[in-house]
Amino acid sequence: MSLEDTMNALGAEARIAARAMALVPPDRKNGALWAMAEALSSNAAAILAANRKDWNAAEKAGMTSAYLDRLYLDAKRLNAIAEAVANMTDIPDPVGSIVKEWTRPNGLKIQQVRVPLGVVGVIYESRPNVTADAAALCLKSGNAVILRPGSDSYGTAVAIHQALQQGLQKSQLPLAAISLVPVPDREAVGLMLKGLQGTVDVIVPRGGKSLVARVQEEARVPVFAHLDGICHVYVDGAANLEMAKAVVLNAKMRRTGICGATETLLVDRACAATHLKPLVQMLLDAKCAVRGDADTQAVDARVTPATEEDWRTEYLDAVISVKVVDGVAGAITHINHYGSHHTESIVTADNAAAQKFLREVDSAIVLHNASTQFADGGEFGFGAEIGIATGRLHARGPVGAEQLTTTQYRVFGNGQTRP
Amino acid sequence: MSLEDTMNALGAEARIAARAMALVPPDRKNGALWAMAEALSSNAAAILAANRKDWNAAEKAGMTSAYLDRLYLDAKRLNAIAEAVANMTDIPDPVGSIVKEWTRPNGLKIQQVRVPLGVVGVIYESRPNVTADAAALCLKSGNAVILRPGSDSYGTAVAIHQALQQGLQKSQLPLAAISLVPVPDREAVGLMLKGLQGTVDVIVPRGGKSLVARVQEEARVPVFAHLDGICHVYVDGAANLEMAKAVVLNAKMRRTGICGATETLLVDRACAATHLKPLVQMLLDAKCAVRGDADTQAVDARVTPATEEDWRTEYLDAVISVKVVDGVAGAITHINHYGSHHTESIVTADNAAAQKFLREVDSAIVLHNASTQFADGGEFGFGAEIGIATGRLHARGPVGAEQLTTTQYRVFGNGQTRP
Repeated sequence: MSLEDTMNALGAEARIAARAMALVPPDRKNGALWAMAEALSSNAAAILAANRKDWNAAEKAGMTSAYLDRLYLDAKRLNAIAEAVANMTDIPDPVGSIVKEWTRPNGLKIQQVRVPLGVVGVIYESRPNVTADAAALCLKSGNAVILRPGSDSYGTAVAIHQALQQGLQKSQLPLAAISLVPVPDREAVGLMLKGLQGTVDVIVPRGGKSLVARVQEEARVPVFAHLDGICHVYVDGAANLEMAKAVVLNAKMRRTGICGATETLLVDRACAATHLKPLVQMLLDAKCAVRGDADTQAVDARVTPATEEDWRTEYLDAVISVKVVDGVAGAITHINHYGSHHTESIVTADNAAAQKFLREVDSAIVLHNASTQFADGGEFGFGAEIGIATGRLHARGPVGAEQLTTTQYRVFGNGQTRP
Repeated sequence: MSLEDTMNALGAEARIAARAMALVPPDRKNGALWAMAEALSSNAAAILAANRKDWNAAEKAGMTSAYLDRLYLDAKRLNAIAEAVANMTDIPDPVGSIVKEWTRPNGLKIQQVRVPLGVVGVIYESRPNVTADAAALCLKSGNAVILRPGSDSYGTAVAIHQALQQGLQKSQLPLAAISLVPVPDREAVGLMLKGLQGTVDVIVPRGGKSLVARVQEEARVPVFAHLDGICHVYVDGAANLEMAKAVVLNAKMRRTGICGATETLLVDRACAATHLKPLVQMLLDAKCAVRGDADTQAVDARVTPATEEDWRTEYLDAVISVKVVDGVAGAITHINHYGSHHTESIVTADNAAAQKFLREVDSAIVLHNASTQFADGGEFGFGAEIGIATGRLHARGPVGAEQLTTTQYRVFGNGQTRP
């Protein structure tokens, strides 16, 4: 059987499993999550051995230490993975919840009800936790999932997948609800992106920019993803300096490698004389490189010139670009032009300025007086997320269990016919 | 300038207009709708003259009488078009409405707020009303629209578009909010389906199956559409015969050419002895051809045999396929296998059977004791619709003003930073 035939069969089985999973009551899904968490613990030896093999091969292949760290599992990390699966039992079950309900003049009662999306394809790289996290979130939301891990962590993924399957089996749920591709190569990715003969409803890429770019370019099915997180903080003329310092430092430096990390600081010309220098020096002192426009270069000799390219760059590192703009309108224009429609924050005591910013900035998440690093499903209270989407359709922002559902209209009559 | 350059420029202008339209308050949008309706009336002579020219050319080209009727405009029909535009002022404005609102333990207040989708591309055929309907619905929902009418009705569309532009101008709204492609040929369609350099957010095809199929096949942007409306009525063993007759007759025969028209009748074996014959004879007497399985053929000599292909066929005509199934489970299996996930109805006095049907049938709309012909945005109370979508993402079912929006998260803090 060719890989294409095998993958199509996988898709067809996932589709059948998805129909079954859509009808599983919340308690049984939670039971399966507990059983999966337990199986991850009881299979620890096998999982860690498989991971050691993957890790040794990756080290031999000369992967970077950051890469090796992402790949690495030990008992503590595996325990955290199992706990995350168990914690998903606490998330509210979105399936069957009524979004809206109304009655028409002819007596028809219409309900809009949440139902699972169907089959979710997850394409990821080396992090072993994604196998368990993505599977658990898809199960919680009543979907079937097809997992395609990176080739470097495939052995680890197989071992984790076996544990998850034990959990499904114990709960008498269909094993095809959580499928793993038979080989982790690029051909399998290409086939998933084509939708496996209409059996894949949505693809979620989890990984670096080149993976996401390939998925967005090639996919023939909808994709939940963001390519860039070029996030901004705008410090308005009416900003309290101490608050601005706290928000900017956290937004840039708490973790520089996440998509909600701020990459550009915009400062209102109206407060540049008082706020720009302390903000820039704070960042420099925190070991953040600052690339600035002429105004910013003037406040400290350590500031290097920002190029046009800097305004479009997601550093994911301790680097920030800084620019003085003309008020909230200038900030909005800059952000809508250079940004990636991900997450932006305004710091101001002026509510009218904040309202203008929140309304006019065309991003998935906009904040007033808070750090951009809150761009996260957990921080939103979603319990877990499979990623953050900057596409405009269906799921915009953090993608949690609810965003992995669609809706169905259920109409209740007593014999109505249409005139 | 090549057509591609022209179309890309159109897209870029539409994108800019969309940003402006997203911020226009409800009253000004309604003012523009009134002005557009008035301009349609005051431009009646020009519009009807353009339509006469289109119609004459189509007649000369030997188009069918059904086609010529769809293309035809007179004062009465044009008046109905203007009225439909004016009536859109009554629809609730979805933009800015709060979908959800909650506060996190750290004090962050999160709002999920409706915002327009952006730029909608509408690709349609000969019906002159689509130009005005689609433009008005997109305007109401704060979007910009790019219209591509069929080449046979292009002259009519140009004349209607000019009237709509007068309405925009009078209301001082950007003219690029309602754009018409400069030439209605296939190349323009192909360019729109590629997204005009990322400026088109969604495509809505309005027309026959071949148009929708081409759009779904070629589109590199999301599509709101349905390919087939193979709708079912299932008459359960516990159905009242009189109600079943009324619902079936209406579902099949009220209008046979719409996507919510029923194409297959399923009858529970448990009531076949009492219900099958009267239902089939009622349909035959109403001049509906009946193609049936062996059981159905047995009740009346006028029934012809149904082939496997019949269960997958959308007749859009006075033809129905009829089959006896084993209870609600048999009906669900048949529908999920052969159906098009559009609209299905169960007639029964048994609430448990109804609940099972509504939960387990995987369609955008499921009804209990009501005609499938209610599958319509107007009947749902949406005021207007741009179509019905059977895709699982974003908009499933009738696509009205609300479905032409997405959401943005607005987060209100007082200096929160992420630990």
